[in-house]
Amino acid sequence: MQDQGTGKNSVGDNSLKRETIQRVISAFIVVPFVVFCFVSYPSLVGLVATIVLISSGEFFFTTLKKHDPWLSIIYTALVTTYPVLYGAAFPNNPMELLAVVFIVGSVFALSRVKNREIITEVYFAYSVALLYISFLLSFFIPLYAKYGAAMSLLTLTLSWSYDSFAYAFGMTMGKHKFGSYYSPNKSWEGFYGGIFGTFVYILIYQFVTNTVLKSNIHMNPLLALALAVITGVFDTFGDIFESSIKRHYGVKHMGNLMPGHGGMLDRIDGLLFITPVIYIVLNLFY
Amino acid sequence: MQDQGTGKNSVGDNSLKRETIQRVISAFIVVPFVVFCFVSYPSLVGLVATIVLISSGEFFFTTLKKHDPWLSIIYTALVTTYPVLYGAAFPNNPMELLAVVFIVGSVFALSRVKNREIITEVYFAYSVALLYISFLLSFFIPLYAKYGAAMSLLTLTLSWSYDSFAYAFGMTMGKHKFGSYYSPNKSWEGFYGGIFGTFVYILIYQFVTNTVLKSNIHMNPLLALALAVITGVFDTFGDIFESSIKRHYGVKHMGNLMPGHGGMLDRIDGLLFITPVIYIVLNLFY
Repeated sequence: MQDQGTGKNSVGDNSLKRETIQRVISAFIVVPFVVFCFVSYPSLVGLVATIVLISSGEFFFTTLKKHDPWLSIIYTALVTTYPVLYGAAFPNNPMELLAVVFIVGSVFALSRVKNREIITEVYFAYSVALLYISFLLSFFIPLYAKYGAAMSLLTLTLSWSYDSFAYAFGMTMGKHKFGSYYSPNKSWEGFYGGIFGTFVYILIYQFVTNTVLKSNIHMNPLLALALAVITGVFDTFGDIFESSIKRHYGVKHMGNLMPGHGGMLDRIDGLLFITPVIYIVLNLFY
Repeated sequence: MQDQGTGKNSVGDNSLKRETIQRVISAFIVVPFVVFCFVSYPSLVGLVATIVLISSGEFFFTTLKKHDPWLSIIYTALVTTYPVLYGAAFPNNPMELLAVVFIVGSVFALSRVKNREIITEVYFAYSVALLYISFLLSFFIPLYAKYGAAMSLLTLTLSWSYDSFAYAFGMTMGKHKFGSYYSPNKSWEGFYGGIFGTFVYILIYQFVTNTVLKSNIHMNPLLALALAVITGVFDTFGDIFESSIKRHYGVKHMGNLMPGHGGMLDRIDGLLFITPVIYIVLNLFY
């Protein structure tokens, strides 16, 4: 989620406008590609693996910057192994895969890092990337297998919808900040506006995909509202979580892949917390 | 795994002897209790949860010593939630549980820690404890459910057997050290002796439980040898992994629960890496 300014910020107004234009242009290039990947299970698995690869790469090259680059390269590869094997070969054995990837990465750290001052920092980066990026994003795989393309595309676009509405409401109406220490520019107007916009978006998405694409999503409005609230809450927490790590390392973005959007991890931070929660809620109430 | 001395160490010989006596006595108190817990599935789940509680408590109070003690207390409770809910209520939903416990713990850190210098240290401790202690030890739950009491008790005692044989061989014959940077006192004699002793132990265990306790374990000798080698390799790595964390924090033991044995985590460090690997190998070859 992007910070929602109060709209009173006159310095840097031009650079904000420029950033917005850049965001829109690069979104128009990336969005169709990403949506197209939802056409089949193999391409969805490939998409998840690609996003894990890019965002964990950014993460390791930020957090382990002062170490041997091979550590970051091997760790990026190891962490990406999880969605690849989970999606392509062992859909029933995620636990076993996670354990093996964790143990292999730990043993690798022991063989590579000979300094007791920094070894725990290396485990930290590895364990967090494995759990936060690879494990959480891989919930798209069972989500797709169980609820289909339309529902998993809805989950992805929930995060986009909330981000956009929260940004728009926050920029235009944001007066009351609820500023977290780690991400101070959020406003209540952005938060509620984001949830409201997302609720409307779910109803429209359901109607459009059911009539045009013959998908079969039948959520009652209460579940749709619950999903919108969940999106708002967990997108916000996911964003603050990622901000706190960035601020610890003193960087503004984790990477610079998409102009105006920051790095890949900055783009998916909220999605990482949203996806497993939505999967669980669908399992319970849908 | 205990360090295997070279036997040439005359200073501290008395304290070594005293430690050995303490080890034996406290083992005679704890071992029957632990073995008794393998009598039923609920008591096994309770045992796993208790061990996770104690060892993650030691871990958090060591790694987060300079922080608010409530952080350690809540984190110990959260991490223990995983085996309890997994074993008692959701045997088919370990992934969902792990995701929820991770997200709840991350959000809790954000609400509790207002310092960008230390926040990643807190995530580190939480993610590692969750993966290393809680997640890996909880493989005893599916191991018990799928292969029964005798096989899961074998897994536990494999670690004990290897530790004892490696210690005995290392103390008496250990000449060639393969010293890791983090755990320098290991010898090749201890390693091979531990594997050999464990192989013999598996054959005896199988014979005794099949005839006396009417269990039904039928491993061919090749699988028994494979399990002994796996035990030796992963017990060693698990021990070095835990040592590297201890040495980073400058402590000799994580806790002081059992006189002569160090803390709980010092006791189970090898077991944590062994259990999931044995579960996977049994799934593949048994």
